[in-house]
Amino acid sequence: MTAETPQARLARAKEASRATARLTSDEKARALEAIAQAIDAHSASIIEANGRDIARARESGTAESLIDRLRLDEKRVAALSSAVREVAALADPVGQVVGGHRMPNGVALEQVRVPFGVVGAIYEARPNVTVDIAALALRSGNASVLRGGSAARDSNTVLVQVMRDALEEVGITAEAIQTVDDFGRDGAKALMQGRGFVDVLVPRGSAALIETVVTESTVPVIETGAGNVHIVLDETAPDDWSRDIVVNAKVQRPSVCNAVETVLVLRQAASRLVPLVASALQSEGVTIHGDDTVAQLTSDVIAATDEDWATEYLGLEIAMKVVDSLDDALAHIRQYSTGHTESIVTTDSRNADRFLAEVDSAVVMVNASTRFTDGSEFGFGAEVGISTQKLHARGPMGLSELTSTKWLARGSGQTRG
Amino acid sequence: MTAETPQARLARAKEASRATARLTSDEKARALEAIAQAIDAHSASIIEANGRDIARARESGTAESLIDRLRLDEKRVAALSSAVREVAALADPVGQVVGGHRMPNGVALEQVRVPFGVVGAIYEARPNVTVDIAALALRSGNASVLRGGSAARDSNTVLVQVMRDALEEVGITAEAIQTVDDFGRDGAKALMQGRGFVDVLVPRGSAALIETVVTESTVPVIETGAGNVHIVLDETAPDDWSRDIVVNAKVQRPSVCNAVETVLVLRQAASRLVPLVASALQSEGVTIHGDDTVAQLTSDVIAATDEDWATEYLGLEIAMKVVDSLDDALAHIRQYSTGHTESIVTTDSRNADRFLAEVDSAVVMVNASTRFTDGSEFGFGAEVGISTQKLHARGPMGLSELTSTKWLARGSGQTRG
Repeated sequence: MTAETPQARLARAKEASRATARLTSDEKARALEAIAQAIDAHSASIIEANGRDIARARESGTAESLIDRLRLDEKRVAALSSAVREVAALADPVGQVVGGHRMPNGVALEQVRVPFGVVGAIYEARPNVTVDIAALALRSGNASVLRGGSAARDSNTVLVQVMRDALEEVGITAEAIQTVDDFGRDGAKALMQGRGFVDVLVPRGSAALIETVVTESTVPVIETGAGNVHIVLDETAPDDWSRDIVVNAKVQRPSVCNAVETVLVLRQAASRLVPLVASALQSEGVTIHGDDTVAQLTSDVIAATDEDWATEYLGLEIAMKVVDSLDDALAHIRQYSTGHTESIVTTDSRNADRFLAEVDSAVVMVNASTRFTDGSEFGFGAEVGISTQKLHARGPMGLSELTSTKWLARGSGQTRG
Repeated sequence: MTAETPQARLARAKEASRATARLTSDEKARALEAIAQAIDAHSASIIEANGRDIARARESGTAESLIDRLRLDEKRVAALSSAVREVAALADPVGQVVGGHRMPNGVALEQVRVPFGVVGAIYEARPNVTVDIAALALRSGNASVLRGGSAARDSNTVLVQVMRDALEEVGITAEAIQTVDDFGRDGAKALMQGRGFVDVLVPRGSAALIETVVTESTVPVIETGAGNVHIVLDETAPDDWSRDIVVNAKVQRPSVCNAVETVLVLRQAASRLVPLVASALQSEGVTIHGDDTVAQLTSDVIAATDEDWATEYLGLEIAMKVVDSLDDALAHIRQYSTGHTESIVTTDSRNADRFLAEVDSAVVMVNASTRFTDGSEFGFGAEVGISTQKLHARGPMGLSELTSTKWLARGSGQTRG
């Protein structure tokens, strides 16, 4: 396409990030409004490009569920611009003072939020991620370099061009939003190896994609996503909460990372809760993979294997196991959890406290559906992803997770003794 | 030594980290006091082991400056135990509530500080780092896995054993402090590749060591250290502040990362400040690598090459350049800085504000010595290192930088609509 290298684009993004870092909150909001208007104005050409992606996906026999995630229609394009406007309305984290004090010698120290600089993203075939990440990055003063899935190539090309043109219209360099899609695998590699140019890289997509990015990157990465999510029901768990929370956590949107995958029932509660919860799930079309005790207590259960405990079904299937004690439930979670979200249904405050203290996951819940682990549910507006690592960000990532800090020190000639 | 693998030790450290995470602040303080007492009690055997390291270093022709960093005598062993007591006295970050709110549906969200789990460290031949990192990790509820330089092998073996025995004495598993020194290069590799076992890895040492750890690690790394530090003197910089700050920043401890390496003088101030600052430096034994203008304004100047602008001398040498404008100074810093610390001497508030806003370093100063970039100067007690990356920690890292957070959600049966 061009003779340039992906590295040259990273360098231009880095250069542009110095300009975006200095934009005022109002200037960034105006730029985002320009982007939202441009997306609305170019709705037809965006949908047309998306049609080419859909046609290619059909030809190559892509599953309908994936094609659905790829598809843009008028309503979904309108949702894109509306998401950009929501991001524009969020409070700007840049410049927020998060700490500080006066040193004994009089030097005033202040720790303030600053943009990262260049935010990289590697993700799969969902064109909305292209717009979401670019908008979140810009709101927090960052430039972005995007590498979307090749299945969404045509959609992403148009979306990036529309956003870049909108930036130019309001006097901001288009280089603040970059794609390296046209370099294919080399574009992803340049991002992963872009030390000095990429300040943080966020992978979003399948476990395999995330694993690749984590393993091959020499730039700082925030690991997101994989959710082998557990709900524990203890002997004090009320019938209604148990049923409602498990069904909601499995059925309300089964394909996402905060959906529950395994239910652990304490033995003392098994005869009461297993039939109740299993039949409620089955009436919603959920297939149950259960251990022997579960199979004895309810019908139509597929015998669970060890593999089931480790599986993120992301569909209308669930694993169910009876455990002897809370200790055993905690041990099972330690072995199989991906550290995303776990919940316990209980009215025993000691069990609740132990669960909150000992489960080592980004979000630990008592008596609530795991579906609440979500940026907008947490009040962050849009979300960059859900971090399952412990460094920098853990759980739903909002705008402030796209910032770093720097220390400002103001003195009057002080030297160290 | 043993038939076990470094991975087995990482697994035991991970297991132990579940216990250290639940220790109360008082229990951790008692454990650290036990470690401090044990170090004092074993001073003779520590010094004896260190003697073997020193002898080996001598035989292999190690530079005296490095041997000095390696050496432990009675006074330095006492400083080790005293540092442990200082860490014990620091406030425990674990359990601190850093955020939270009630969701509209009544679910109470709380974001609390939790230990990382397992903190890994790869460092060079300084036995004090062994004790510092183990103590900081324990204070913040973490287990630690240490990989020190082979030159300090015997010292580290004894120090780790003394600390592990002290833990057992107060009823804490010794597995909370591990070394993988005896596995050599395989120990370092196990740390760098220890996904699922190592929650954060901190390299401390030379630029080459840090580069290796950043490049080869698949676990989250916090990059530390390298400091190509700049001081800018503008046309309003007072004579005394300019001289005192530059001399202090270079001479007070030249071998450390926050020592200044390049001075940039604005042309309008050159004839006033270059001779003044250069002669003050020279009278302290500092060799000056200067550009042509500097050479015209003062004597005994070595002609600077481009390499000088990129060099971290870590000794009594300095680079000095005259630039036409603050823009040029900022451009030079952008090109050569490692993002550690930069300072400007000025009484022009517009120049101060621009410098603070536009320099993209962990610590940006006005009218203060760069030597203040330091954990204890910043009031953090001991320090884990100085982060030069933007993810998670930036600048001096104290105890709270050895923690992550988790979200606790307490509901009463809420489900997502």
